Amino acid sequence: MKITGTFLDEISHDIPSSNWGRKEWAKDFDEMKAIGIDTVILIRAGYKNKLTFDSESLKKYIQPYPVYIDLVDLFLEQAERCGMNFYFGLYDSGEYWHKGDYKKELEINKELAKEVAEKYGERKAFKGWYASHELSVHDEDQLSLVGELCEELKSIKNIPILISPYVKGRMQFEDPITLEEHEAQWDQIFSALSGKVDIVAFQDGQVDFFELEDFSRVNKKLADQHGIESWANVESFERGMPINFLPIDWRNLKMKMDVAQKVGVSKLITFEFSHFMSPNSIYPSAHFLLDRYREFTKL
Amino acid sequence: MKITGTFLDEISHDIPSSNWGRKEWAKDFDEMKAIGIDTVILIRAGYKNKLTFDSESLKKYIQPYPVYIDLVDLFLEQAERCGMNFYFGLYDSGEYWHKGDYKKELEINKELAKEVAEKYGERKAFKGWYASHELSVHDEDQLSLVGELCEELKSIKNIPILISPYVKGRMQFEDPITLEEHEAQWDQIFSALSGKVDIVAFQDGQVDFFELEDFSRVNKKLADQHGIESWANVESFERGMPINFLPIDWRNLKMKMDVAQKVGVSKLITFEFSHFMSPNSIYPSAHFLLDRYREFTKL
Amino acid sequence: MKITGTFLDEISHDIPSSNWGRKEWAKDFDEMKAIGIDTVILIRAGYKNKLTFDSESLKKYIQPYPVYIDLVDLFLEQAERCGMNFYFGLYDSGEYWHKGDYKKELEINKELAKEVAEKYGERKAFKGWYASHELSVHDEDQLSLVGELCEELKSIKNIPILISPYVKGRMQFEDPITLEEHEAQWDQIFSALSGKVDIVAFQDGQVDFFELEDFSRVNKKLADQHGIESWANVESFERGMPINFLPIDWRNLKMKMDVAQKVGVSKLITFEFSHFMSPNSIYPSAHFLLDRYREFTKL
Repeated sequence: MKITGTFLDEISHDIPSSNWGRKEWAKDFDEMKAIGIDTVILIRAGYKNKLTFDSESLKKYIQPYPVYIDLVDLFLEQAERCGMNFYFGLYDSGEYWHKGDYKKELEINKELAKEVAEKYGERKAFKGWYASHELSVHDEDQLSLVGELCEELKSIKNIPILISPYVKGRMQFEDPITLEEHEAQWDQIFSALSGKVDIVAFQDGQVDFFELEDFSRVNKKLADQHGIESWANVESFERGMPINFLPIDWRNLKMKMDVAQKVGVSKLITFEFSHFMSPNSIYPSAHFLLDRYREFTKL
Repeated sequence: MKITGTFLDEISHDIPSSNWGRKEWAKDFDEMKAIGIDTVILIRAGYKNKLTFDSESLKKYIQPYPVYIDLVDLFLEQAERCGMNFYFGLYDSGEYWHKGDYKKELEINKELAKEVAEKYGERKAFKGWYASHELSVHDEDQLSLVGELCEELKSIKNIPILISPYVKGRMQFEDPITLEEHEAQWDQIFSALSGKVDIVAFQDGQVDFFELEDFSRVNKKLADQHGIESWANVESFERGMPINFLPIDWRNLKMKMDVAQKVGVSKLITFEFSHFMSPNSIYPSAHFLLDRYREFTKL
Repeated sequence: MKITGTFLDEISHDIPSSNWGRKEWAKDFDEMKAIGIDTVILIRAGYKNKLTFDSESLKKYIQPYPVYIDLVDLFLEQAERCGMNFYFGLYDSGEYWHKGDYKKELEINKELAKEVAEKYGERKAFKGWYASHELSVHDEDQLSLVGELCEELKSIKNIPILISPYVKGRMQFEDPITLEEHEAQWDQIFSALSGKVDIVAFQDGQVDFFELEDFSRVNKKLADQHGIESWANVESFERGMPINFLPIDWRNLKMKMDVAQKVGVSKLITFEFSHFMSPNSIYPSAHFLLDRYREFTKL
């Protein structure tokens, strides 16, 4: 089973900018295509003051940094050229939904979605929405935000909606959730999102490797029960090292891919190809990661 | 408006060493020249025990690490070859002036300046002093240190003196200074330094982008009032990321350059070309930063 | 005096993985040989759940991550091809010996050593053991662990045993040890290890440079007194920078090599060539470090 989707991260919130331009992105899409990537997901349209395109609607709510290049257009163009599906990631204020004002976050994103549908909705590669607000444990407000946003997205443009939540696991949290508690909470969450979200791709880096299979099985089972398709977001960066975040050890990538395959997800995506697995990456160990990946997947 | 000056950082206090030798530095000076850099500024002659040359005067006060290469000579030679102006950065003990003993810091640097003037003063490229002790808020001792040092420097070799202070801004400090307070304090500081310092190049990375224009206008206005020329130190490294310090996102560089141009500074310098913007940089994203920089400045 | 030995680090506990495969390792052994490296030391057979080979004995005690490649075999093969001596580093649970259960750590390693001797003991390059549990100050349990382990190793395969302790120095510890206290404690430690350990290679990065010569002299003198050969582990990575751990400034490497030579050690080894000094390193500054190293050692 190969990785056939990748996030696109050029907002540079915690991952350093590669400083790529049009030519470098085109070259990287060629490399994605070469290893069979057919799906690209914009990690978010914007984060706080940073935007991927000069959005009229967002400007009503926030003061953006200057936008010099329309990355949505650039990514759509490349996705079209390479025959890929593009998922549009919504905006994350980094603020309202963390401060109890999910309705504001929702309002901003509803307007954004309308603008985006109007501006890019007819583009051939525009095949999905990515609800970028990351869920983890049961939280009524966050659930309302994502649920209501998905309904709105469906009404604006009825294409598949993807989410990529994370497990509150021991690799990142001092008070990790138990498997039982996780199952109970995600049963509730999926119940609320059933019929709204189409695809779930759990991140896999917060869970201890030896617990990953159990958590992944529960996630798959619950998603099945609520009619949601399961992908896996096999993270290609390493966590928990003195330098965060660098390309992952190929052995850790393989371990996680094997688990995802074992529990039966239908597709593997990764965060993300361009920094961590690409022969064009600014990190040389990414070049070797791709070599190892090609070897063990016989690509 | 282009960046026409850069600091030279080879003391490796918080920026990792590139481990360049004579050949690599010569190659990098060629690249500097190619994009129009005409001014190079030694960040400091030494920091704590690390020295850029085997200084007899400093050895009276500190126990230096072994010095294997005369970087001052090397940088002067390259600056001469490339027709650039070289500014000599003074010594920072990292100690005395932080511990209430500015007079000791002053004494050390007076002796150093004499030695340097004698040793390198006739070199063609030796065109300025850089008073390397970074000012920020009003502090009588620091002000005395820089003021008295500048008078001494002028008497030793009467060439322009540059300082590169920073704003106590919210990107770095939990209790940032207000614009009004900054204006009041720098009015005092510039009053004290008027006639002593010739050029001020404020660092621009500590200020929130949306406040940068206001702070920069105040800085420019005050410097004008006190007869000090304004340059801008447009930092080419990113702050506030999990990995400190890597090449800046080209969009952030452009934003800051545009602000500097808008408020009317006469020259843009950067900290610093060789790690963060050079095609020879040990960081691949620096290579792409230069490509973007060339694009947006039409170089 | 040249560096003629290096650790091999592919467990990726705190140093990011290079993601090298067979071909890349072969290429790097060529480079090691080219600069005169004749000794390679596996840093450890395993750390916590990560193993360098699919060990039957370790599986009785721990649940290992999947092992996809036999690194011990690969390293032995390359060492044989290049005419080098290979030292096998024992297993570090990262647990038992820190929690008062040194006997468990010992038991695990005894079984491992037997398995390893049986599996790889006849390999031509297998010329030494490396007792990987790092000693620093006097600790009865740790001393029993290393002492008893060494006796067992000798009885299994009687080849030289290397240890690489560290000084509890001010570069890493807030309450550094004094030279006198260090001397007193290591007199005890070496007394206990005399006749068991053959070679000691102190790490040199925890000690302030100006104290390094004194500590190194004491180490050499004590080792001589107890019939233990002295090497130096000249670390090739930089400590105490915002980014840990990157290739060291070549001047710091030279300073430390000069001290080691001055106090009379018989061999210089480093942690480690492949990340920090190799022309194949994922860090470009390592490529330049090798250039500088070749210059100052006239290699």
